[in-house]
Amino acid sequence: MSAVNGGAGAARLSGVLAPVLTPFGCDLAPDPERFLRHCRWLLSHGCSGLAVFGTTSEANSLSVEERQRLLEHLLAGGVDPAKLLPGTGSCALPDAVRLTGLATRAGCAGVLMLPPFYYKGVPEEGLFRFFSEVIERVGDVRLRVYLYHIPPVAQVGIGPELVERLLARYPGAIAGMKDSSGDFENTRAMIERFGRSGFDVFAGSERFLLPTLRAGGAGCITATANVNAAAIDALFRAWRTADADRLQDSVNAVRAALEHYPVVPALKAILAHHADDAGWRKMRPPLVELAPERIEPLLAGLRAAGLEI
Amino acid sequence: MSAVNGGAGAARLSGVLAPVLTPFGCDLAPDPERFLRHCRWLLSHGCSGLAVFGTTSEANSLSVEERQRLLEHLLAGGVDPAKLLPGTGSCALPDAVRLTGLATRAGCAGVLMLPPFYYKGVPEEGLFRFFSEVIERVGDVRLRVYLYHIPPVAQVGIGPELVERLLARYPGAIAGMKDSSGDFENTRAMIERFGRSGFDVFAGSERFLLPTLRAGGAGCITATANVNAAAIDALFRAWRTADADRLQDSVNAVRAALEHYPVVPALKAILAHHADDAGWRKMRPPLVELAPERIEPLLAGLRAAGLEI
Repeated sequence: MSAVNGGAGAARLSGVLAPVLTPFGCDLAPDPERFLRHCRWLLSHGCSGLAVFGTTSEANSLSVEERQRLLEHLLAGGVDPAKLLPGTGSCALPDAVRLTGLATRAGCAGVLMLPPFYYKGVPEEGLFRFFSEVIERVGDVRLRVYLYHIPPVAQVGIGPELVERLLARYPGAIAGMKDSSGDFENTRAMIERFGRSGFDVFAGSERFLLPTLRAGGAGCITATANVNAAAIDALFRAWRTADADRLQDSVNAVRAALEHYPVVPALKAILAHHADDAGWRKMRPPLVELAPERIEPLLAGLRAAGLEI
Repeated sequence: MSAVNGGAGAARLSGVLAPVLTPFGCDLAPDPERFLRHCRWLLSHGCSGLAVFGTTSEANSLSVEERQRLLEHLLAGGVDPAKLLPGTGSCALPDAVRLTGLATRAGCAGVLMLPPFYYKGVPEEGLFRFFSEVIERVGDVRLRVYLYHIPPVAQVGIGPELVERLLARYPGAIAGMKDSSGDFENTRAMIERFGRSGFDVFAGSERFLLPTLRAGGAGCITATANVNAAAIDALFRAWRTADADRLQDSVNAVRAALEHYPVVPALKAILAHHADDAGWRKMRPPLVELAPERIEPLLAGLRAAGLEI
């Protein structure tokens, strides 16, 4: 398991982070206790940090107050804020400011920020102003923003010109990026262009962990870490060894077995099985649980790929 | 100016509705007084109703509380709730429930609901559950939901199978649709398939107003109504006359002159000029004001198209 690196002043995240699944009760309300238990389990089974409130977390299906209460529950439950990277992006500037401010004042290692994603084809100037307003309104030197580039879902991406402008204006606050483009050449280009400015690039999938680390990146933030963190962390720790390619192949096999399924419902079904807790399967609309008849084939495929469940 | 039609029990909206522009102050906060003034002006200059908090309103850039306060300000200012069709969609179920409940309890004619738009390619079942949960949690017989289909922006659309399921389950609550697909054949198909069930279809652009009315639709909800409501309303009132095609051509010419520009910033620039109030130009990020050098060409193009400004 990796910890935090000493950066220029503040500790910086690296290694394997999970975008933590969010459990819901029968009434579709988030379940803070199940959430806390899962967070603790992840931190003791290979995750160096927790990217709570990401895409895998159904976070945009949560209200601001729900995200706030869940974060407060983790902190009250003793989760170290230096291991937290909450998602705080929103279409609405005041929501992003409020969530980012809360996370920063709580001492979180950073925040993972989506661009506002309702309008499509917006000018780069508009995205620059959005991030600028958040940074200036939060107004806290502890703020570390990791930009969240996930064009397949958000449609609105974060390109190199925008990163360059933001880094030039806010060199202390802009801390890195999660690249979920699915295009490793983009990840490599971001590392090569900005990696030397203390800009930490995380791959959005463990499939790209080894090439990301070899290029100078910081790790990965990957949905699969919810169920396979130990193996992904083993790869992270061994990436400079002769064993690295074999370990990469091994985590790839598990991921490939998952990719036949809608990822978030499948991960929840695996967790429900693993924790012997069917309640974990619940999804908040518009996402939908994995059909019951697909669960056994999913588990069988994962076992064949080497996952011990 | 049209008013409301007597429907099965409740009054129903028809005619020309404006998705009302939202004014912001220098601090990017919504300006309730300018908003109220513009709403009153629209209702006295051709709009039969106000679709506040739409795409043109930058509503997804507003927090839930900001939308709530603006709505309350309109009601306190004497705007008739029977003319209001607030946008209450959200990615987050609790936000959609809260906004829809507020609007319904305030006596609004209906609500215009986006589907949750963060996740792409979601199953129809997930969208059905989302709308179902909102309708059941609001639990008010006065609720009238108009489904908002705008795939060019939301990416997540509302297809005929979903409308059919929702109408079958909630025949009283599902009241109609705004079709901003830009594809009149889709509008026609929705009217032909569902128009007889008391399902009122509004075109998302006045360009399709005459064909929509001829097919049996209810009117249009169009950004341009913020600056050209009187002429669009004149077409609505005269659609059965020999003059209708000429009136349609005339509103089309104004729209064509606008379509060279980013629509929301252009509409705000026109309003700023018309009201002699430069403050109207302000946009909340990620949208950006029209460049100053583009304002005169925009106004000149509109004058050439027949708009009196």
